[in-house]
Amino acid sequence: MSNSGLDAEKIESNQEERTANVHRIDSLNLLIFTTLLVIVVLTIWICKRRNFRYLHETCLALIYGSITGAILRHTSTSNTKPSILRLNDTSLPKNVIPNWVSFEDQNMSASYLYAFQGPYQKDTMHLEEYKAMFNSEIFFNIILPPIIFHAGYSMKRKNFFRNLGAILMFALIGTTIACISTGVMVYGSIRAFSGLRSYFSFTDSLYFGAIISATDPVTVLAIFHDLNVDVDLYAIIFGESVLNDAVCIVLAQSIEKYVASAILDRFDRGLMFKSLCNFFVVFIGSFAIGSGMGCLTALMTKFTYIRDFPLLETTLFVLMSYSTFLASEAAGLTGIVAVLFCGIFQAHYTFNNLSQESKQRTRELFELLNFLAENFIFIYIGITLFTFPNHQWDIRFIVIALIAIGLSRILCVVFLSFLLNLTRKNQISWRWQTMIIFSGLRGAFAFALAIRNVSTQARSLMYTTTSIIVILTVVFNGTLTAPVLKWLKIRVNVNEEVEAPSSNDRYRIMEDDRNRERRSSDEVVLLNNDNDDDSTLAIDLRRDISPNRKIEKKPASKTWLLKKWSHFDRIFMKPLLTHSYPPLTVTLPACLVPITRLLTTKEQRAFNRNENLFPTEMQSFDNHDNSTLTNNCRNSTPELIDMEFTCTNPLDHYSTVSNLKSNMHTDATSVNLRTDNNGDVSAHFTSSSSSSSSPSKPL
Amino acid sequence: MSNSGLDAEKIESNQEERTANVHRIDSLNLLIFTTLLVIVVLTIWICKRRNFRYLHETCLALIYGSITGAILRHTSTSNTKPSILRLNDTSLPKNVIPNWVSFEDQNMSASYLYAFQGPYQKDTMHLEEYKAMFNSEIFFNIILPPIIFHAGYSMKRKNFFRNLGAILMFALIGTTIACISTGVMVYGSIRAFSGLRSYFSFTDSLYFGAIISATDPVTVLAIFHDLNVDVDLYAIIFGESVLNDAVCIVLAQSIEKYVASAILDRFDRGLMFKSLCNFFVVFIGSFAIGSGMGCLTALMTKFTYIRDFPLLETTLFVLMSYSTFLASEAAGLTGIVAVLFCGIFQAHYTFNNLSQESKQRTRELFELLNFLAENFIFIYIGITLFTFPNHQWDIRFIVIALIAIGLSRILCVVFLSFLLNLTRKNQISWRWQTMIIFSGLRGAFAFALAIRNVSTQARSLMYTTTSIIVILTVVFNGTLTAPVLKWLKIRVNVNEEVEAPSSNDRYRIMEDDRNRERRSSDEVVLLNNDNDDDSTLAIDLRRDISPNRKIEKKPASKTWLLKKWSHFDRIFMKPLLTHSYPPLTVTLPACLVPITRLLTTKEQRAFNRNENLFPTEMQSFDNHDNSTLTNNCRNSTPELIDMEFTCTNPLDHYSTVSNLKSNMHTDATSVNLRTDNNGDVSAHFTSSSSSSSSPSKPL
Repeated sequence: MSNSGLDAEKIESNQEERTANVHRIDSLNLLIFTTLLVIVVLTIWICKRRNFRYLHETCLALIYGSITGAILRHTSTSNTKPSILRLNDTSLPKNVIPNWVSFEDQNMSASYLYAFQGPYQKDTMHLEEYKAMFNSEIFFNIILPPIIFHAGYSMKRKNFFRNLGAILMFALIGTTIACISTGVMVYGSIRAFSGLRSYFSFTDSLYFGAIISATDPVTVLAIFHDLNVDVDLYAIIFGESVLNDAVCIVLAQSIEKYVASAILDRFDRGLMFKSLCNFFVVFIGSFAIGSGMGCLTALMTKFTYIRDFPLLETTLFVLMSYSTFLASEAAGLTGIVAVLFCGIFQAHYTFNNLSQESKQRTRELFELLNFLAENFIFIYIGITLFTFPNHQWDIRFIVIALIAIGLSRILCVVFLSFLLNLTRKNQISWRWQTMIIFSGLRGAFAFALAIRNVSTQARSLMYTTTSIIVILTVVFNGTLTAPVLKWLKIRVNVNEEVEAPSSNDRYRIMEDDRNRERRSSDEVVLLNNDNDDDSTLAIDLRRDISPNRKIEKKPASKTWLLKKWSHFDRIFMKPLLTHSYPPLTVTLPACLVPITRLLTTKEQRAFNRNENLFPTEMQSFDNHDNSTLTNNCRNSTPELIDMEFTCTNPLDHYSTVSNLKSNMHTDATSVNLRTDNNGDVSAHFTSSSSSSSSPSKPL
Repeated sequence: MSNSGLDAEKIESNQEERTANVHRIDSLNLLIFTTLLVIVVLTIWICKRRNFRYLHETCLALIYGSITGAILRHTSTSNTKPSILRLNDTSLPKNVIPNWVSFEDQNMSASYLYAFQGPYQKDTMHLEEYKAMFNSEIFFNIILPPIIFHAGYSMKRKNFFRNLGAILMFALIGTTIACISTGVMVYGSIRAFSGLRSYFSFTDSLYFGAIISATDPVTVLAIFHDLNVDVDLYAIIFGESVLNDAVCIVLAQSIEKYVASAILDRFDRGLMFKSLCNFFVVFIGSFAIGSGMGCLTALMTKFTYIRDFPLLETTLFVLMSYSTFLASEAAGLTGIVAVLFCGIFQAHYTFNNLSQESKQRTRELFELLNFLAENFIFIYIGITLFTFPNHQWDIRFIVIALIAIGLSRILCVVFLSFLLNLTRKNQISWRWQTMIIFSGLRGAFAFALAIRNVSTQARSLMYTTTSIIVILTVVFNGTLTAPVLKWLKIRVNVNEEVEAPSSNDRYRIMEDDRNRERRSSDEVVLLNNDNDDDSTLAIDLRRDISPNRKIEKKPASKTWLLKKWSHFDRIFMKPLLTHSYPPLTVTLPACLVPITRLLTTKEQRAFNRNENLFPTEMQSFDNHDNSTLTNNCRNSTPELIDMEFTCTNPLDHYSTVSNLKSNMHTDATSVNLRTDNNGDVSAHFTSSSSSSSSPSKPL
């Protein structure tokens, strides 16, 4: 064997050993996470069985993670001596840290490459292995998208859009105020401490303000959902915390750009204005990508008939949703906003085109992914609290930061609520304000923003402080949410029949079908609120809505923009993107028929043909074959009939006329369709079961 | 601002830029993959619509990946100049490549760490970005487990175990022979080429033999499934290719260890024997972990009643399955074998304890993950063919390797089939042998083994050659499988009623329920084959099995071991791990009652109590409420009744007596239970519908 051959074999086995070692460590790391997740699942199960709802799963994950982290830190010693080549820095250019280091091996005439990992402290080298397996890239690209998509997908869209003003106010203005005020307060306070002052600049303070202002929806909303808290409060807190994240990342980027420009002496007065423009470009761009991809998926699922193969259909749906996130990020926009709106559009349009199997699959899949991702991230936060090799502890800074974020939150919420209450019919009371302030806990997103960059002492300090704040707020605020709700006397157990937050329905799969029907009936009500529109084929059948609620809701519920959108949605978007009736051939002017005919599917045309036959057909339902009818008897509530007609529902459209017939029959409901002078069609239902009967309102 | 503060800010923004750049590249990379997956899905959909079944999806993924890779290679230029610090190697210890490089920054008093990436060629630095996002760790830890688990979970266990002898022969002996003969042939051939000889040693050749001997089940089996090929042939090829992978990884590790020892001059004669021992330790250890975790999950799901919360249940199931893989890998064993047997055990026991929702969820989830993972890996193989920065092309070597693996495969299959046919009743004909040889295409696993270590020229050569072989065999053999099957006149469209391969049921969700019933009835038949066992409560009701098939199958089907296992399974494993009847209190000796009572759930006890009441209760079914009965009428075939009794089925056990009643009623079947002299209970069904009636065979 030649000398060079021997060398090659040494290098080979060197690499083999390295690979095997890395694999062992990775497996062990993942095993720790999986085992902790199993323990979390079992603990949740015990809590559920014992009806102990105050300790939320994320809190559990955090606590278990911390305990494991502490054990790992104090037991792990590097049994495999890491082979480090230490270089003196003479050969390095000043103040530039290269991304790669390479060196050439003369024997092998090969070059080897080393990638930048980050700073480290010598005594924590053995912890490097625990850090290696996770980085912020995995969080942002893999863990985050399912969480946000699930939020958008399962959101109560009606409440979200009804409170859009307040949400945008809190998310855009509120977060910016919070960021600046936190930054200023922190900077002001640390002037007193010479140790911190030396390396923590004003831009650092602002940057810290940006990353720490991202509130987390997970824990509070899960508890809200369990307790059925007032849906408007729920919508505000949810909407704020989701959009919030996007605002924070844009703010942080703007501050970074500002710093970079300032260093390069290209600072100009217009930079702030530029940042502001950038801010809106990013938001609008992300919204455009998200909604565009949502519509594209709807079109694909409408016209391809891929639903014959549910596996392909589900895969396509998942992949399109994920591409939305990636496309937005790759374009330098914010994937969170994109995937949020993609989720909203998918739920509104695409979901209607899916087969029954795919609907269930996608819902369950995202629910599962969301659950795993959430708990994984909180376990990770807990573990890294102890195993991260480069912590920078400063108790004074932690106290300052806690006080600053608390004060900033109070300031924003009180100030903005005052402004909002000037125009809002449904006032934000002091109780709600207190709850909004209390819900401002920090979670995974702040953590991920902090861990992205720990290259300097100041950044390490931010990272350590953020970890502590996340843990404190999740454990403290998370655990106290239920008692505080009780103390504030905020309406809980809001009548589920009307207002159940049917989103986020974890552990409630059994109720899913009921919830779905309910949500859909809500939508129908929403749709029918704009009575000034013509050419409507909508059957209004509100039942169980208490009169006082109706009065309270109606005046505040509709803005001009929302009305216009609702109309546009009905005459153009729905017919274009789903199989709903009326099709575009009916809703758009006749001159466009050549185009609209192309965009109308045979399901829509079939509906069209049957339209005029309905009244006569319905007379002959009674002698329909009994055996097929009974299959549908479980779902046969008047809401379902409602949905079948207007097709604004997330139920399957392919259970068309015959399904409808059977529903009608089994509930012994007689339906009369009536055409008004202005072309509107209204229906009268007379149901034999008194509980579900309610006279329909002519439009 | 102090000087040090400015430095810190430069470093901060340096890192910020690095993070942003990495994030952009990662997003772009993932977007490319997602987009390609979307295109693959759409193409598959078109193929399915056009009934064009010859081009399999993995083949499509490979082709699209290659095209994209070629485009990327020729269009991508590093627009962001990578900052590389090039070092001369004077400071390096000879022949040792350190895992980490660190240097200290005097200004910041911080150390920075660089991690080893691998060798690179200067002109391909810009391709580094495409490589960065994927490594073999992701394949082994994330992509592979769902594929293998899905295989084990959805496998037709009956056929697998019936052909276990042939499978083990091909997988263990066959692969070892193939590895050695390929290695010898390659080494013999390259002696002729001085260029290769200089750096490709004999151990390299053997190592290459090991990694290239891993055959891939994906493509061929999907086509087999679509065409309903003979189930025994299917089982042999499937079983061989799954166990094969594990054999190859163990062989490769043994060769590596051998090399490492040889270099360190610790070579001893017993090393080969040690390797052999290691081989069996690894196999048996992995089997133990896999089956142990499977049983543990079954116990957890049986006794916790976590099925009240389907989301938690599904999560637990997924996590436990994944931990099996990780635990096995972390222990230095082979996760593939562990997760395969875990899948088999989960399907056999745990699945019975799951709620109806979880059953569907887990099946669909693993199906989806399997689909995504498979296609992802083939796209990746295609892309890296062009973008991998360190290829080592040698057309001579590729030709040599192709000839060597072809000859080795023919040698093994013919030789081992000859040996097997000496004892086998159901002979492996030359047609089957040809098909087995033809099915030996190389796939993701060989690729992943090759990419693990590309540190030297020899390893790079192996990697490049493996890529080419994978692509050639997947495209060539994959596309020609259907024509070759036709040419060989191998039975396709085997009567689905008897032998449908109900596993791998992609695109066949609609048929799932039917398949499930069928599979379960198969299992019942298997169980009843061992007539010499006593204390059996099994109701035999074979219908539709053609007499000639029965004669052909029976003598070869049962080995002594399998019989013993089957008995043990029935009297101990099933009652312990599932809610099946009879419980341990009945099957085990009376002296153990205090223990067995603890291990018996209330479902099992309820069954127990109702047992003696059956005949009388069944007389009164006719006046049962009609409306509840009709809900179950779709599933009411005699097979189902069968399963309800013996509880060896994967259907829900909580549809116990009342469900049974309704089934009986709707089929107008009267059932008589009869106890024989030896305590066996047999049943007679008399069905009013002649198609499904068949007299039961007393045991």
